[in-house]
Amino acid sequence: MSNLTLDDSHHSAHRPVADWLRAVPMFDVLSEAAVGVLAAISRLDDVDAGTTLFREDEPAEHLHILMEGRVTLSSQASGGRRAVVEVVEPVRHLVLATVLASAPYVVDAQAITDSVLISVPTEALHQLVRENAELASSLMRAQAIDFASMVREVCDLKMRTAAERLGSYLLELLRDDPVVETGFRLPIDKRLLAARLGCRKENLSRAFAILRDFGVETHGRRVILHDVEALRRFAFPNQLAAPGTA
Amino acid sequence: MSNLTLDDSHHSAHRPVADWLRAVPMFDVLSEAAVGVLAAISRLDDVDAGTTLFREDEPAEHLHILMEGRVTLSSQASGGRRAVVEVVEPVRHLVLATVLASAPYVVDAQAITDSVLISVPTEALHQLVRENAELASSLMRAQAIDFASMVREVCDLKMRTAAERLGSYLLELLRDDPVVETGFRLPIDKRLLAARLGCRKENLSRAFAILRDFGVETHGRRVILHDVEALRRFAFPNQLAAPGTA
Repeated sequence: MSNLTLDDSHHSAHRPVADWLRAVPMFDVLSEAAVGVLAAISRLDDVDAGTTLFREDEPAEHLHILMEGRVTLSSQASGGRRAVVEVVEPVRHLVLATVLASAPYVVDAQAITDSVLISVPTEALHQLVRENAELASSLMRAQAIDFASMVREVCDLKMRTAAERLGSYLLELLRDDPVVETGFRLPIDKRLLAARLGCRKENLSRAFAILRDFGVETHGRRVILHDVEALRRFAFPNQLAAPGTA
Repeated sequence: MSNLTLDDSHHSAHRPVADWLRAVPMFDVLSEAAVGVLAAISRLDDVDAGTTLFREDEPAEHLHILMEGRVTLSSQASGGRRAVVEVVEPVRHLVLATVLASAPYVVDAQAITDSVLISVPTEALHQLVRENAELASSLMRAQAIDFASMVREVCDLKMRTAAERLGSYLLELLRDDPVVETGFRLPIDKRLLAARLGCRKENLSRAFAILRDFGVETHGRRVILHDVEALRRFAFPNQLAAPGTA
């Protein structure tokens, strides 16, 4: 955690932590007083792109909640390869199950853009959970959603081709930003995208080639979807991992 | 749940539920009195092979703990295909995160052999958790282990070939039954094994063919490992999902 920076020149310093906490859905159940208690023990971190937030096997000393930016969760394999478990977008907590159990982290977390995170010490969070049954229930629900999303990811990886998974990923980007209907820039580079989808870079190129028949045009990280409906029919033949089913 | 059977002719009826509960690691923290309370609300079910324990989207009304037998967790896709998320072996709880959050089940569960399960009503379990902080912590830890195992499965699916995953699966069977050092029968049929590994049946045959170079001989469900060390070097090149790292 030594490479975290807290820099007044970043904009996040101008909003109190309590304001940020109110934007976290799993804290919706908290009273104003409880938000105040949580704010008193929480810290807001502005981190630079490339910052490692925590490493696999370290004790989970903080619950991190990504408020702005983008974070990868990954696991090291030999030969320098990394499995990217997830690319986390805000507003989202990181590995809640691990934190609530005070277990060692099961993944590395790294900010891949400049990011803003709330950081809650694990021990203090446990104390709050013991005192606040509504918070405990809310965290349980959040954990169940995390678990369901991992189950869906496993099904997805087992049942669907790289091209189908790439198609769903592109459609999800569209959903997140409905204003841009046909053209957008990939938020992550193609090397990371391949790792996220669980394929080699050459398979990603092949997947993009397959998607050309369904109206997907690419120029580097720039993507144009000419026929969203055709892509949807190709990518969600069976509704597994369809947007909105989360 | 209408197809559950409770039949005195099965052997499980001869042991009180409390005895079974004492064999569940996550209940180790409970006092004798607390085990008694849990036993009073729990039921022991003998179910036949083929019994559906619960279905996706149904409310999670019970925590099931598999004591004997074998259960698949799966998710339906169109065209009749099923993604097998996990083949559960005893002693093991099913989808704890879902139950603790009172969320709908995210998978179907089906006994694939005659099985014995403890079944604890969700509402009564919640009540116990509220009263027993040690039980709450123990369930949190169990949940974190479940989450870690799903993370490992995702890494595994993203980083490793079907042949490598098949190799690890065979080595895990060896570990579970160290007496049988070179020959054993697959506990699940090849169709289910392919679904479990997340590949098509023809890819499973190809994976077995690759493993022949590492001393793996098969005759139907009968497997002989002629060179366990060679298989280990092939299947765990990077320690991902290696036995004992769970």
